[in-house]
Amino acid sequence: MRLGVAGLGTVAQGLFVLLSENADRVARQLGQPISVARVASRTPRSHIDTLGAEFSTELNSLLQDDVDIVVELIGGTDDANRLISRAIELGKPVVTANKAVLSQFGNSYISRARESHVPLGFEASVAGGIPIVAVLKDGLAGNSIDSITGILNGTCNFVLTQMDAHDSTFESALRQAQDLGFAESDPSFDIDGIDAAQKLSILGSIAFDQPIDLANIYIEGITNIQLDDLHYARELGYRIKHIAVARVFDSSVEMRVHPALVSDKDLMSRIDGVDNAISVAANGVGSLLLKGPGAGSRPTASAVLSDIIEIAKGKSSLPTNTTSTRRASPICDLTSSYYLYVPVSDEPGVMATLAEVLGNHRISMESVIQKSDAIQQTGNVRWVPVVLLTDEVRESVLDETIRDLQELSAVHGDIRRVRVVNLN
Amino acid sequence: MRLGVAGLGTVAQGLFVLLSENADRVARQLGQPISVARVASRTPRSHIDTLGAEFSTELNSLLQDDVDIVVELIGGTDDANRLISRAIELGKPVVTANKAVLSQFGNSYISRARESHVPLGFEASVAGGIPIVAVLKDGLAGNSIDSITGILNGTCNFVLTQMDAHDSTFESALRQAQDLGFAESDPSFDIDGIDAAQKLSILGSIAFDQPIDLANIYIEGITNIQLDDLHYARELGYRIKHIAVARVFDSSVEMRVHPALVSDKDLMSRIDGVDNAISVAANGVGSLLLKGPGAGSRPTASAVLSDIIEIAKGKSSLPTNTTSTRRASPICDLTSSYYLYVPVSDEPGVMATLAEVLGNHRISMESVIQKSDAIQQTGNVRWVPVVLLTDEVRESVLDETIRDLQELSAVHGDIRRVRVVNLN
Repeated sequence: MRLGVAGLGTVAQGLFVLLSENADRVARQLGQPISVARVASRTPRSHIDTLGAEFSTELNSLLQDDVDIVVELIGGTDDANRLISRAIELGKPVVTANKAVLSQFGNSYISRARESHVPLGFEASVAGGIPIVAVLKDGLAGNSIDSITGILNGTCNFVLTQMDAHDSTFESALRQAQDLGFAESDPSFDIDGIDAAQKLSILGSIAFDQPIDLANIYIEGITNIQLDDLHYARELGYRIKHIAVARVFDSSVEMRVHPALVSDKDLMSRIDGVDNAISVAANGVGSLLLKGPGAGSRPTASAVLSDIIEIAKGKSSLPTNTTSTRRASPICDLTSSYYLYVPVSDEPGVMATLAEVLGNHRISMESVIQKSDAIQQTGNVRWVPVVLLTDEVRESVLDETIRDLQELSAVHGDIRRVRVVNLN
Repeated sequence: MRLGVAGLGTVAQGLFVLLSENADRVARQLGQPISVARVASRTPRSHIDTLGAEFSTELNSLLQDDVDIVVELIGGTDDANRLISRAIELGKPVVTANKAVLSQFGNSYISRARESHVPLGFEASVAGGIPIVAVLKDGLAGNSIDSITGILNGTCNFVLTQMDAHDSTFESALRQAQDLGFAESDPSFDIDGIDAAQKLSILGSIAFDQPIDLANIYIEGITNIQLDDLHYARELGYRIKHIAVARVFDSSVEMRVHPALVSDKDLMSRIDGVDNAISVAANGVGSLLLKGPGAGSRPTASAVLSDIIEIAKGKSSLPTNTTSTRRASPICDLTSSYYLYVPVSDEPGVMATLAEVLGNHRISMESVIQKSDAIQQTGNVRWVPVVLLTDEVRESVLDETIRDLQELSAVHGDIRRVRVVNLN
C-alpha cells in the first residue's frame, strides 16, 4: 500500500513517525506494509525523514500510478480542493485532515466518491485523535442519533480553562496560548468559533445523514466572556465552555457553536486545557462520551493513519449517504436557559424593575445573584452586576427582553448573555 | 441481510427494538434492509415481537441457509460454544455478546475464523454500548497501545458509588443494586471481579495482538472495601473504583482487576453509578477516554447491531491477528503505590514501630493519617487506624512488609491494602 502525501507540516511529520514506529504492528494486521511512495510540498524541508519517498514540489505528482492513496495534509482550500477533486476523478482513494476544504467542498466530494466508489477518509478533520467519525459512522451505526454536544476547539478551551483556573484575563490567557503554540498569531479563526463550526458541520453530516451545511450554523466565539462571568457561573454550579451542539427534532436540525454554561456535575465541565470532548446522545447507546487530544502532530496523524488502514484493509470506506433533508432551525427558535449579566445602578427598586420586565415576557428566574461587595464605579455612576439564570425560554423572546432591559435607565453598560447547555 | 438470533433475553429484545426503530436509517446506509429470519430459544416467550421471525426451540435451526449472520445472545458457555463453533465451521458470520464464552473459547474461534475468512464480531461482549472493540481495532489501528485502564463492571461501580455518596455499608449498597436490577441475586460473578476480568481478557487480546488469556489476569473483587477506606481515600485526594488494567512493557504484559485509588483530579474518578469507562494510552493518540453505559438492553443491542452492520457492509470484520507472545507479568512483580489501613493499639511509640518496619523494607510514606477522634474499642483493646500512602514499591516487597507489620503486637486486626492506579 503506497501513499502519496501532500504536505510536510506537523501532521505529515507525525504520520511519518507513526508509520515508522508502528510499522511492524500495522504490517502484521494488514498482511502488507504501508510505504510512502511520494511526498509533495511547495516548500522542501530536507531535515524531515519521509521514509524514502520521492519528493516533488508539484502536488500533481501524487496522482501518478505508483500512489494507491492520496493523503492531503497541506491545509487551506485552493490547492487542497484541486488535489482532492482530481484524485477522486481518477478513482484514487483520498484521506484528508482538512476541515476547511471539507466544510466548503465536502458535499461534492461525498457524492462523487459514492458514485464512483472511491474511498474517502476524513477522521482527522474533526477532534484530532478522537475517532469520532468512525464512532458515529460505524460504532453507532445501529443508532438514530439525537444530538452531539462537544468541545471541538482546543484553543478556546485552553483560554477558558486558564482564565478560570488562574483568574487570568482573556487577553493574558490568549497570549499564553500563543506562547505555548496552542493559538496562531492571528487567533480569530479559533476564538471566533469558525474552526469549531467547520468541525461541527462535518459531524452533523455524519450523525444525521445530511449534507455538510456550514452556512446554517450559528457561530459565536469566546471574546465576550469576562472573568466575572466565569466566577458567577461557578457560583451557580456551572463552568463556561465553548460548546458545539447539533441536535435533531423530527423535521429540523439545530446547529450552533457558542460559549455555554455547563453544569459542574457533568464531565464535560471538567474537560480542561487543549483537550476535546464529544458527547453523543442516541436511541441505542443512550449517552456516550469521548475525550482526547483535539490537535497535535501524533494524535492527528493517528486519525489519518486509521483512515489509511481502513482503506488498505479493503473495507468499503465510502462516505455515508447524506440524503436526509431536515430544515435548519434558526438560533431565534432555540429554547434554552440563559445566564444574564446585567449592570445596574446601585439604587433601591432596581431589582423590582428588572423582575417586571422579565415578568412582562413571562420569563422566570431560576437564580439571582446580587452582591453588596460587587459595587463598582464607572465615571460618577455606582453600579452593581445583577446575574440571573432564567428558566427555559425561546431565544427570540429573550432577545426582546434584553432589548427592553437595555433601555432601562437603571441599566449601565451592555448586558451579557450566555446560553446554558444541558447534557444528560 | 437475514439474521438468526439465539436468545430472547434483554439484549435480544433490545436488538429487535432497535432494528424496528432504526430500520429506515440502517437500510439507507446499507442499501438493503436487515431482517430477522429466525429466532431460537429454549423458552418461548410469545409476548416478544421478533419482527416476523420463524421461531424454534432448536438452536441448530439458526444454521440453515436462510440465515446470513448468526447472532448469539443466549449467554452461558455450553450451548453458546456449540452454536458459535458450528456456525464458524459452516462459514456463517457470527456476532456474539458473550464474554464468558469468548474468554474461554475465543482463541479457537479467532484462529478458525481467520483461517476460513469468517467474520466474527464481539463488540457487545465488552463495556456494553461503548464501541471500545472498534476503537482499539480500527480507530487506533495505527497506534501501538501502551495500556488500557477502565471501569468495566457497572455493578461494582454502582456499589462503590453508593457507599461513597450515601455512606452506605457494602451490604446495603449491594442490596440496593439488587433491588434496582443492577446486581444478580448471586452477585459474586460481578463483585468478585470475574466479569471485569473476562472483559479485560478480550480487550487485552485486541489491544496487544495477543491470545485471550483469562488465566493470567490477577483478580480481586470489592468485598473487602470498607466505608472507612472510601473516607480516607477522599481525604488523600482519591476515590476508590474497581479498576481493570492491562499494560505492556517490552516483553511482558500485566493484566489485573482490583479495587484501586484513583486521583480525584482524573475523570476516571468521576465515573459514577453503572457507567463504564475506558482510558487508552497509545503512542499516536496519547490518551483517549470513553465513557458510556456498560450494560442494558439498548446499549448492548447497539453494539450487537454495529457488528451486524459492519458485516453487512461487506467490511472484512475478521478478528485481528493474535500472534504476539509477551510473557504475562505476575502480580508480585507489580510496582505501585499502596494505600494501607493498619489498625494499631492506641499507645505511644506505635507510629515509630510502623515506620521502622517500612524503613527496613525501604518503603517511604507519601502521606499518613492518624486521627485522635478515630479511636475505637474492640473487646478491651483501644485501637486506632493508621492510614498510609506509600511511594512506589514492588508488590512482593509490600507483601513481606504487610506480613511483618501484621506480626507486631501493636497491630490489632487485619491490615487492608488497596493499590493506587495512576492515569495520565
